[in-house]
Amino acid sequence: MTTPRRGRPGYDLESLLQVAVKLFNERGYDGTSMEDLSRKLGITKSAIYHHVPSKEELLRLAVDRALDGLFEVAASTDQLDGRAIDRLEHLVRGSVLVLADRLPFVTLLLRVRGNTKVERAALARRREFDRLVTDLVKQAEAEGDIRPDVDPAVTARLVFGMVNSLIEWYKPRRGSAAAEVADAVCKVAFEGLRTGS
Amino acid sequence: MTTPRRGRPGYDLESLLQVAVKLFNERGYDGTSMEDLSRKLGITKSAIYHHVPSKEELLRLAVDRALDGLFEVAASTDQLDGRAIDRLEHLVRGSVLVLADRLPFVTLLLRVRGNTKVERAALARRREFDRLVTDLVKQAEAEGDIRPDVDPAVTARLVFGMVNSLIEWYKPRRGSAAAEVADAVCKVAFEGLRTGS
Repeated sequence: MTTPRRGRPGYDLESLLQVAVKLFNERGYDGTSMEDLSRKLGITKSAIYHHVPSKEELLRLAVDRALDGLFEVAASTDQLDGRAIDRLEHLVRGSVLVLADRLPFVTLLLRVRGNTKVERAALARRREFDRLVTDLVKQAEAEGDIRPDVDPAVTARLVFGMVNSLIEWYKPRRGSAAAEVADAVCKVAFEGLRTGS
Repeated sequence: MTTPRRGRPGYDLESLLQVAVKLFNERGYDGTSMEDLSRKLGITKSAIYHHVPSKEELLRLAVDRALDGLFEVAASTDQLDGRAIDRLEHLVRGSVLVLADRLPFVTLLLRVRGNTKVERAALARRREFDRLVTDLVKQAEAEGDIRPDVDPAVTARLVFGMVNSLIEWYKPRRGSAAAEVADAVCKVAFEGLRTGS
């Protein structure tokens, strides 16, 4: 092209991805076409294909952004010494911060149903993460720090049920809000609602 | 018709609704046409319209099945005397049992995004239910039974984050399973994971 399109914002892969994820969350991944995306961006489909080869590749980039964040927290948890319950609390707290920081990406991840190769791969990584959590719960139970009267897999699911609920209600605001929510999740999960419990 | 269709199961509204809800959950409400439903049921669209005037009416019946169950529990909670924390526990336990019993209906309800009149009405009833929960948490906090260091609306959302996570992982099995899960949710929510907490 000889005429630069002045005044129209250009897109790099990152800004394109952000718009795509927003659209996928609004209309569903299956319900969004590359045509819809090109209309939303105000650029041609071939301009999109300049950055990314397919809609599925956009999905892969998006869900990996969420999963990579969660697995980085898991890796840093693995570096810690000490009791399993403290490592579990570190993992829960870090996961809340990842959700708050990468909310649209995690929202998309949690709605993935497994209809494509990318979606199945994401579900497999989610299961791997769930296993890490369940293993930590088991270890903390073996160390006598977690109540033994709830199945560890159920405990892990309930705690991450709280964490994942953020996608339904958390509104990113000032910087401290995410840390406050992480505190709230840890208080409720580890100490319970009841005073004197 | 003069020839009864022997060997093909007939549908009443209830069985038709069950198939519709399953399909809505698999493909999304927006992604499911009455044509899809007629193919799945093996009956004509006009046979469906004999039972129900529109796809949206099927959605309304389905989400009301979920919401009515939750509001019945809320009404029975309201009849109880005693401390707010005990009423809250009754509401949480009852909600888990409703989810377990009406799982496909609640799954559909929790995925509703508010694009139609029926969806907006369902979201309004969900907000009303959330307010009831938050009010109970506030009352229990005022009575000194719930930790005052977490915002009551956040507490309410986290507890129902646990409850609602059932749609992701609960598999209906033998009769006692739902009661066990309800116990687990109440233990984790009210007493916390930590032993000696």
